[in-house]
Amino acid sequence: MKPYEPSGPLQPWPRRSSEPLGDYHIFSVRRDVASSPRTGRDHSFFVIDAGQWINIVPVTDDGQIVLIEQYRHGVQEFTLEIPGGLAEIHEHDLAEAAGRELLEETGYQAREIVSLGACHPNPAMQSNLCHFYLGRDCRQVAELELDAGEDIHVVLHPIEHVPELVASGRITHSLVLAALYRFMLSAHSA
Amino acid sequence: MKPYEPSGPLQPWPRRSSEPLGDYHIFSVRRDVASSPRTGRDHSFFVIDAGQWINIVPVTDDGQIVLIEQYRHGVQEFTLEIPGGLAEIHEHDLAEAAGRELLEETGYQAREIVSLGACHPNPAMQSNLCHFYLGRDCRQVAELELDAGEDIHVVLHPIEHVPELVASGRITHSLVLAALYRFMLSAHSA
Repeated sequence: MKPYEPSGPLQPWPRRSSEPLGDYHIFSVRRDVASSPRTGRDHSFFVIDAGQWINIVPVTDDGQIVLIEQYRHGVQEFTLEIPGGLAEIHEHDLAEAAGRELLEETGYQAREIVSLGACHPNPAMQSNLCHFYLGRDCRQVAELELDAGEDIHVVLHPIEHVPELVASGRITHSLVLAALYRFMLSAHSA
Repeated sequence: MKPYEPSGPLQPWPRRSSEPLGDYHIFSVRRDVASSPRTGRDHSFFVIDAGQWINIVPVTDDGQIVLIEQYRHGVQEFTLEIPGGLAEIHEHDLAEAAGRELLEETGYQAREIVSLGACHPNPAMQSNLCHFYLGRDCRQVAELELDAGEDIHVVLHPIEHVPELVASGRITHSLVLAALYRFMLSAHSA
């Protein structure tokens, strides 16, 4: 992802120090101290580090999108999402990681996986990216391979229902909304 | 936000315990243990708690969107965003909190602030919501009131440039992308 270049007279903040504070397996927390180029004063910022995240918009050859229902422990509610997760440390090809998540969470496989860009999950306090992929011509090739910590139900919706699923608040995960926005924009420009 | 009701045979995971692990001022971390309704086994989940987040899509009466450029310490890069942040603990009216962030970060004020819904920043590992607002008929009424920890530059873009700002990867913050998607869908349906 190309860094954004500000049009205004802004300067980067030189970082003075960085101190690890907590390690929570799927993410860790550090405190950075950086100096304001405007005031010269030091400020503390808490930052969450995690691996690269990926998600995938899986589309079938008859124009349906493959979604998953699951119980999410952060909000203790069910959600409707596209497949996604954490790229494993050895997975340097993130498109392959997206294909793995797709297969594990839905039993579907894509004929072709292409990039839809990436986003910052939260650039104020998270360092990692979430990479978006489109899975073309998906079809079911297997049963789900659920981790012991997962329960998932697969549901298909016609692509043209996506705007209504978003506008009605049935899809609520910010990283899913961001991926679907990039997908809908790329689909309309194609 | 209304909870999503799964169409599939999924059950909530009963929570067995919850243990605070770290407090980082703007968020805290806990470990929850919950039991799989499928296998009966216990699993650990790390959860980040934070206050309610809000952001606002500020639109002027001549069809421009008010955006801000700033340096973000999570990614150590500049970003292009809509105004937003953390609702303060006493701010029970989140629309007012959105108006406050708008004024502080841009010097603009909206004639009317209406809800654009909300999202889960990350339902897998975060408990809080981000609430989206639309600020109608915004106009500049003040100079910026920057915190010592902020440097911000305000830029206006015609609303019809938003899809290109998103598709080109110049807007990268997932919560901004999610808000803009809801905004664009509501604008097209209005």
